[in-house]
Amino acid sequence: MTSAVVLLSGGIDSSTLLHYVSRTLGISNIYALSFNYGQRHSRELQAAAAQAAAVGVHEHRSLDISGFGSLTAKGSVLTDLSSEVPDLADIPEADRQQPPTYVPNRNMVLLSLAAAYAEAHAVHDVYYGAQAQDEYGYWDCTTDFLVRINELLSLNRKQPITIRAPFVDKRKADVVRIGLALGVNYAETWTCYCGGDQPCGRCPSCAERAQAFAHAGQSDPLLCL
Amino acid sequence: MTSAVVLLSGGIDSSTLLHYVSRTLGISNIYALSFNYGQRHSRELQAAAAQAAAVGVHEHRSLDISGFGSLTAKGSVLTDLSSEVPDLADIPEADRQQPPTYVPNRNMVLLSLAAAYAEAHAVHDVYYGAQAQDEYGYWDCTTDFLVRINELLSLNRKQPITIRAPFVDKRKADVVRIGLALGVNYAETWTCYCGGDQPCGRCPSCAERAQAFAHAGQSDPLLCL
Repeated sequence: MTSAVVLLSGGIDSSTLLHYVSRTLGISNIYALSFNYGQRHSRELQAAAAQAAAVGVHEHRSLDISGFGSLTAKGSVLTDLSSEVPDLADIPEADRQQPPTYVPNRNMVLLSLAAAYAEAHAVHDVYYGAQAQDEYGYWDCTTDFLVRINELLSLNRKQPITIRAPFVDKRKADVVRIGLALGVNYAETWTCYCGGDQPCGRCPSCAERAQAFAHAGQSDPLLCL
Repeated sequence: MTSAVVLLSGGIDSSTLLHYVSRTLGISNIYALSFNYGQRHSRELQAAAAQAAAVGVHEHRSLDISGFGSLTAKGSVLTDLSSEVPDLADIPEADRQQPPTYVPNRNMVLLSLAAAYAEAHAVHDVYYGAQAQDEYGYWDCTTDFLVRINELLSLNRKQPITIRAPFVDKRKADVVRIGLALGVNYAETWTCYCGGDQPCGRCPSCAERAQAFAHAGQSDPLLCL
């Protein structure tokens, strides 16, 4: 029986990845891992639970590391609840290289915890949903990051773990196309940074999601509810 | 003003390191970071607070990531509260390479969080108390680990962080000698894996502490209380 840990935020990339790992890669024993890291809302955690149930994972854990938010509140509008998430249009072009919605060292934190979870359950592979469009803003979604974190983890004498990011070379529209072909229900995913009943439609994340569906030539089912 | 984040467990190595960073390196603006990661007791966190106060750090944060314990409970007697901490004498020689008190991927998890804390506060250096005696049992206390985690963190385009472990080539007795010269009050440190009013004197950690004081030619003030 093949096993894997999958980081599952409940957004488009990780939800598609979960279905891809299960159906395209045929991995039957999936440990899905979500986090409350002090982000602005728990709406994406509800989406994560829905996707885990849709795939039929072996186990889905949500880890509370909400103290991480206060530890890094000075570093990000995502975890500093006193600040406002800016509209994409208001972010200067130069700042988009490392947008204010970046959370300091988030992927290394989450992948370290995922690797620990994998090791404790004798699982060798951890999947996360980095894709090429994030690479421009987030240093921790790049191929270089993937190579170096695996060089680090390969030192583990007890059980080497490999981090895998099958979408690292794909753009978000390609991810949406893969997910639609796999029958992912995108009405049960959440992308908006702001929470609420409906996506705000203006934050950088909403803008990116809209562009991905447009490029994939599809309408976003979440907007049709 | 020079600044640093220091990982502070409240044991001998990290308590000595804290004094070393403050007094020997002369770093005036110290952010000390401790963790409740689901370990067996909070006695070492009390010791950490006492050491932070003794040095006069700028800030001391204790981060609750206790869910990490349940995530890795299958992997370690330190976080699996249903198991018993073995006496050193009962651990087969072969298993001491990676002792049962090892917590899966702990240092990478803690250092990732420390790096995030540093980044959010514009601090460039993170210190942790790895020493050469741990190297035999823990892959995440080695020089190789240090080199590779720094190669990973150097990719951060916003703010590269360097992890520093000044004791990585020293044995525990050397650390004790350094600390005694700096006036560290070892009565306010805690090493025993088991908690309680007095150290158990039998667990692997107590055995190592006793040996370090013996080799340094000193008595352990914690045992004289």
